[in-house]
Amino acid sequence: MALVVQKYGGSSVVDASSIKRVAQRIVATKKAGNDVVVVVSAMGDTTDELLDLAQQVSPLPPGRELDMLLTSGERISMALLAMAIANLGHEARSFTGSQAGVITDSTHGKARIIDVTPGRIREALDGGQIAIVAGFQGVSQDKKDITTLGRGGSDTTAVALAAALDGDVCEIYTDVDGIFTADPRIVRAARQIPRISYEEMMEMAACGAKVLHLRCVEYARRFDLPIHVRSSFSQREGTWVVAARPTPSDSEGSEMEQPIISGVAHDRSEAKITVVGVPDKVGEAAAIFKTLAGAEINIDMIVQNVSAAATGRTDISFTLPATDGTTALTALKKIQDRIGFESLLFDDQIGKVSLIGAGMRSHPGVTAKFFAALADAGVNIEMISTSEIRISVIVGQDEVDSAVSAAHRAFDLDADQVEAVVYGGSGR
Amino acid sequence: MALVVQKYGGSSVVDASSIKRVAQRIVATKKAGNDVVVVVSAMGDTTDELLDLAQQVSPLPPGRELDMLLTSGERISMALLAMAIANLGHEARSFTGSQAGVITDSTHGKARIIDVTPGRIREALDGGQIAIVAGFQGVSQDKKDITTLGRGGSDTTAVALAAALDGDVCEIYTDVDGIFTADPRIVRAARQIPRISYEEMMEMAACGAKVLHLRCVEYARRFDLPIHVRSSFSQREGTWVVAARPTPSDSEGSEMEQPIISGVAHDRSEAKITVVGVPDKVGEAAAIFKTLAGAEINIDMIVQNVSAAATGRTDISFTLPATDGTTALTALKKIQDRIGFESLLFDDQIGKVSLIGAGMRSHPGVTAKFFAALADAGVNIEMISTSEIRISVIVGQDEVDSAVSAAHRAFDLDADQVEAVVYGGSGR
Repeated sequence: MALVVQKYGGSSVVDASSIKRVAQRIVATKKAGNDVVVVVSAMGDTTDELLDLAQQVSPLPPGRELDMLLTSGERISMALLAMAIANLGHEARSFTGSQAGVITDSTHGKARIIDVTPGRIREALDGGQIAIVAGFQGVSQDKKDITTLGRGGSDTTAVALAAALDGDVCEIYTDVDGIFTADPRIVRAARQIPRISYEEMMEMAACGAKVLHLRCVEYARRFDLPIHVRSSFSQREGTWVVAARPTPSDSEGSEMEQPIISGVAHDRSEAKITVVGVPDKVGEAAAIFKTLAGAEINIDMIVQNVSAAATGRTDISFTLPATDGTTALTALKKIQDRIGFESLLFDDQIGKVSLIGAGMRSHPGVTAKFFAALADAGVNIEMISTSEIRISVIVGQDEVDSAVSAAHRAFDLDADQVEAVVYGGSGR
Repeated sequence: MALVVQKYGGSSVVDASSIKRVAQRIVATKKAGNDVVVVVSAMGDTTDELLDLAQQVSPLPPGRELDMLLTSGERISMALLAMAIANLGHEARSFTGSQAGVITDSTHGKARIIDVTPGRIREALDGGQIAIVAGFQGVSQDKKDITTLGRGGSDTTAVALAAALDGDVCEIYTDVDGIFTADPRIVRAARQIPRISYEEMMEMAACGAKVLHLRCVEYARRFDLPIHVRSSFSQREGTWVVAARPTPSDSEGSEMEQPIISGVAHDRSEAKITVVGVPDKVGEAAAIFKTLAGAEINIDMIVQNVSAAATGRTDISFTLPATDGTTALTALKKIQDRIGFESLLFDDQIGKVSLIGAGMRSHPGVTAKFFAALADAGVNIEMISTSEIRISVIVGQDEVDSAVSAAHRAFDLDADQVEAVVYGGSGR
């Protein structure tokens, strides 16, 4: 008997009829002989509607109260889901994050999980019940206040519970068939990826692939917990996110066909700030990034030009979430006199395109091929950053689509000849 | 410094603007130098909407899950109210029933309060904060499951918290100016009652006055906690529900003017069952009511006709909530053969009209005057029951209005000459 944790997002539980449909899938998993724990998000647009109500009452609501408000969304969906399962003749019990033992720190709105003590969930499973758990929420260790985990929180709840319960798999249900080699809205020939390593998935998530959130993949990797990303609208196998295999062909023999490039991700949500004319002295760059860290801004890519010997000055460019732009500019202006830089440039009309694949560094031609493909498509590269398994470039926002398509084609990711193989992926 | 517990019902918090209005009233009470605890119900029709969702998912939802679902309503209103108060520059913290220490039994849907341990509320007050508590909900002592208190639950929460915190007064805010001598929709001349004893208020509540629920008054009486029922739409004094005064004129001298009749209540929600031809033997009536108690049906009035010597049989009539009619008839039919009664009659076209007032028994003319007034109005009496401070009659449902009006007039409750005195009531 396996222990399966399933997570259903808001788009899988928009109304009563979709809740009933999800209930049937859960009961089918239970009937197949598994212990089942379900993590559920708030119904459809509930969270946005609650945020809207909060805005009507207060322009800057206290974090503690906002968390109290937002967590009512999962309370509704989980109770309804438990009822729908009961109506199919199976026993289900719903649990808040607090009841499920999701212990967090006190950072309201983006709390981090400190511990998971799922005693009540274990008890429910031992009693033959299906446990339904509110995603996205927990209770703070020190003050016993209700907290929320922030973006991607329900996925993280699911993985954390699966790890704490020593589960066999965490199934993340969404409205697409898994992770794709590129956004199918941009690249029509994009293929579903049957299997991807935690590391590649983390790069994909960090680079804009929205299906799985970075935190959740990090958590799964730490506990070596397989994630199965799949659609709640079909019975097809989705994408398995698992540990990288030590050798390329230790199993069903399909590994040899697997391209070393997993996919092309893109992200339009960043902006670029350039600090112009920074005196080229030791510690000036450090002062700039210390200031930004103090303002709690997450920097992504950084480029420093070679210092122009004649002027003794250099330019430093970096990217950050576009929504943090104003905060960053304000913080930097405060230290302009102290640092002595000349000016600040802000550009939110950028996009990031990333090529992701294990073993990229050991195939020296990859970078060259990527840049050549972009050049052929007439795309100008503004910034570059690389890691062991990723190459990212910043391009103009209106060039993102052509860059993604060109890279996808150049690395033979287009679906024409290999689709059958891919959709028949071995899973796990 | 007084400790004031205020309760706002759903009609006082229907939308963002009414929540802001309520927040201002709460802050004014705090600014006047009081410690303030606020109990709030779900916004407007939220509870009905949630019940509707539950029905769409399951025709017979489990009580535990229904309670989990419904309690999300107060979670929303209390968080929004805390935000609105914060926006006025005062610190407020919201607490679920569980966090507020409202400990109940496990009867989902109509749990009873076993204990109140408001440690976190006391802590918030000591820290100068306004505490906002979810009404209507608690947590079960044995299983730590979320429970709801059933009808009138938020009023009971407020009174229970006020008692546990040794509060000075529990203010129940509603959309009318207090308790009236009769329903103003029926009797235009109905007057607001400035002050009423717990006992009379309990009779009023039990007899259909909907402003305060019976349980809440019972609770307040046990702890001798003054309740002030008033409108959230005006600053006027409302009705004080307090302990009966030992002597009729121990204070401001207004007691002599107070009529011994407090008011006329009515209730259209009951039905009448007649068990026809019950063998007139010892224990037959007991068997009937034991069966009904086993089916958890609350019987109100009971009338047994004098046994007809010729047949050795008698008829037993009783009233009960109309919604329990089917359950009662089913339970009784099962024992028909054993008891040997002839048939069952069911009538839900009845209404109960009650005259309530302390010292009624010591004024022998009251009953006669009441019946004469009904006779003059052409109203036929079907059943009668009396207590120390109440006379109730069952009449045809279409005769309720004329019966209420006739009684109100006969006992000089009409407002014409005394209104000024009443609205200038002494309060407390």
